[in-house]
Amino acid sequence: MAHFTSLDELSTHEIERLIGRGLQLKQGAPVQPLPTKTVANLFFEHSTRTKCSFDMAEHHLGLHILPFETATSSVQKGETLLDTCKTLQAIGVDALVIRHGETGYYEQLQQQLSIPIINAGDGSGQHPSQSLLDLMTMYEAYGHVTGKTIVICGDLRHSRVARSNTQVLQRLGATVIGSGPREWFDETMGIAYRKMDEAVATSDIIMLLRVQHERHVDDYPFATEAYHERYGLTEKRMKWIRPDAIVLHPAPVNRGVEIAEALVEHPQSRIFDQMTNGVFARMAILERAFETSTTKETR
Amino acid sequence: MAHFTSLDELSTHEIERLIGRGLQLKQGAPVQPLPTKTVANLFFEHSTRTKCSFDMAEHHLGLHILPFETATSSVQKGETLLDTCKTLQAIGVDALVIRHGETGYYEQLQQQLSIPIINAGDGSGQHPSQSLLDLMTMYEAYGHVTGKTIVICGDLRHSRVARSNTQVLQRLGATVIGSGPREWFDETMGIAYRKMDEAVATSDIIMLLRVQHERHVDDYPFATEAYHERYGLTEKRMKWIRPDAIVLHPAPVNRGVEIAEALVEHPQSRIFDQMTNGVFARMAILERAFETSTTKETR
Amino acid sequence: MAHFTSLDELSTHEIERLIGRGLQLKQGAPVQPLPTKTVANLFFEHSTRTKCSFDMAEHHLGLHILPFETATSSVQKGETLLDTCKTLQAIGVDALVIRHGETGYYEQLQQQLSIPIINAGDGSGQHPSQSLLDLMTMYEAYGHVTGKTIVICGDLRHSRVARSNTQVLQRLGATVIGSGPREWFDETMGIAYRKMDEAVATSDIIMLLRVQHERHVDDYPFATEAYHERYGLTEKRMKWIRPDAIVLHPAPVNRGVEIAEALVEHPQSRIFDQMTNGVFARMAILERAFETSTTKETR
Repeated sequence: MAHFTSLDELSTHEIERLIGRGLQLKQGAPVQPLPTKTVANLFFEHSTRTKCSFDMAEHHLGLHILPFETATSSVQKGETLLDTCKTLQAIGVDALVIRHGETGYYEQLQQQLSIPIINAGDGSGQHPSQSLLDLMTMYEAYGHVTGKTIVICGDLRHSRVARSNTQVLQRLGATVIGSGPREWFDETMGIAYRKMDEAVATSDIIMLLRVQHERHVDDYPFATEAYHERYGLTEKRMKWIRPDAIVLHPAPVNRGVEIAEALVEHPQSRIFDQMTNGVFARMAILERAFETSTTKETR
Repeated sequence: MAHFTSLDELSTHEIERLIGRGLQLKQGAPVQPLPTKTVANLFFEHSTRTKCSFDMAEHHLGLHILPFETATSSVQKGETLLDTCKTLQAIGVDALVIRHGETGYYEQLQQQLSIPIINAGDGSGQHPSQSLLDLMTMYEAYGHVTGKTIVICGDLRHSRVARSNTQVLQRLGATVIGSGPREWFDETMGIAYRKMDEAVATSDIIMLLRVQHERHVDDYPFATEAYHERYGLTEKRMKWIRPDAIVLHPAPVNRGVEIAEALVEHPQSRIFDQMTNGVFARMAILERAFETSTTKETR
Repeated sequence: MAHFTSLDELSTHEIERLIGRGLQLKQGAPVQPLPTKTVANLFFEHSTRTKCSFDMAEHHLGLHILPFETATSSVQKGETLLDTCKTLQAIGVDALVIRHGETGYYEQLQQQLSIPIINAGDGSGQHPSQSLLDLMTMYEAYGHVTGKTIVICGDLRHSRVARSNTQVLQRLGATVIGSGPREWFDETMGIAYRKMDEAVATSDIIMLLRVQHERHVDDYPFATEAYHERYGLTEKRMKWIRPDAIVLHPAPVNRGVEIAEALVEHPQSRIFDQMTNGVFARMAILERAFETSTTKETR
């Protein structure tokens, strides 16, 4: 069963194989269409990029997508996630892509289902398909991440992107540092903290995190402009970055907060490339889900 | 016009033909794809199983599904159901699958539309595609229902499943009895009432109904555990059932209420088989809708 | 870039070409399928007809439709429309159909996107695909509109249909007059006002506008029946219309308000023909969006 729930469960070899496959697909490598397979996308949290990107990846693989709207499902009658998934399995769905607010929601599902689960984000846990597309974007720029320095700036404490990325980047030989508000830095992640001016000037990859206004209704200590001045990628700081450094952001971007409006499409920004790469990263993930399933079936 | 609104309108011959066709389809009988036909699924009430099952059945028949979201439709501007349906017909939709809260909503539509209506549940009226999949599951176990005893346990008064099933089972030669809270028993259904212990031990088919917490906000007289103890399929009662008896539930299941958690996937439970059968039952229903349409057109 | 945002930007030749193409498609003219192209429909306001009609048109052209639900998108996290559209472009969407509450929302998008925008209604601005289907319906009846008199009855002030139609009808040689409540008449449109009795009796085309109860919560000065009596197409007024006159309404119809219940499907009513024509009009619009894109690419 080729679940895809966290990059921790994959060997570095497997991760690099997926990155390579994603880049091949971007260059037009042929795909084996899967028209007899059905997938359902269960998004219990808002999403544009991740949802649409999976939809597009599924389309490119010729998969059938079973429409599923969480808002009008029996989840509203109190049905558990497990029973909803078992129902979809009984109806003939071959794989499930799930985003859910509960961290680690997939633990129980993995044990009880016989179809693969692809984690599209769990609470403040993991967001492994985002990590894969981030890695793909870094490999596209540098060919590898060994010896590279990546600064992650922003709310590290609540970011599943930060958590997923830090672990895998370290395994792949990179140095990860943190920046942004100290209140939002997470000591337990085992990375060094640098002030923004220094971090930006000394990193190969500058990864900005979104200020999640929806999570910081009460405790958000900074006005938007003050945040930009102190912790954002301002036009002034942009002048200090290395000439081959690249800028990433998982989006949606708060323009003028994490990054100056004029820099979103700067030549060193890879923000829209990340979105494009996301489709190919997810195609690689979905191919893997069905490859292994097939192997298992024929055993 | 091959509407499918209530099993009452079908001959027993026609019902048995549909059951047989559903079972054939489950065994892989070939289908005649209908790629030039378009269907729209209008679900004005929450659903996972029925909606997804129709979607999957339509996909297997090669039908085009016109996306329709009730929440963002002009129904929100006060458009009547009739005008919405006439609009879809004018746009080129060839059949409508409808779930609606109003009992008998289809009466007026049947007269005014020239495309078939497939009833996916009307208020506290009928749920004929559910009845058909229930029958398919019974025929799969026994080959027929003649002389079999079926107990329906739970809120018979508000259940469209109970109503649809009782009538058709009696026509097909079965004996139907009721159980569960006496307050929820419906004298007008013309069936006998038995206490749970006795009913469970003497029936061939045990059909549990969902406790609809959303309908019983005010008058629900039993705590969850008390309900399970008095009216549920407990582990103790499971020991008394006949060795070839089967257990059905339309789902979503309230685990630990209508049925003990550990029994949902018991070898004699057919709960997930019902969901699988639902896809094939609905394929048979949709085939019928288009068969007759075609016949009519060529006349 | 073949945006389609307002008929003002098209030559009369181009408009008549689209009308002609729509009518050809209705008569079964072959289409060049576009299976490698993806379109997304972004409806930020309620819709049945326009949304379903675009969906059906896209299906007939063999386009892939990327599902997009505004309610569960990152728009809910505060993402701007521009960033949402740029995201979809980055993911590989080839054209966007958009309905949005902000008048002229497309101005900025047109400049910043490299994929075509098709306007499915902007605030109280334009609704050009509705205008095109209205024109198609008029040309179907008369072959042209030169010298014809069209009365538009109702809330001209807030109607994007009225605004779009008046301009293009005048360019195509028709005389447009207004009727309905004087409070809702818009002097700035440069058309004459006539009382309903006279307007109805002297026009070739009677175009009724929907009373938008949702816009007139506070200032709606007329009870429903009074409106019908004074400004609606009553059964009495219907007797006075010209024998070859036709009646249009963009729908959803408030039966018994703008038009008598019994007249909605009168032989001279074209209300449901408009819906049917809408699919073909939108096919012509979509074909144009992709034709020009292709031409540009190969330059």
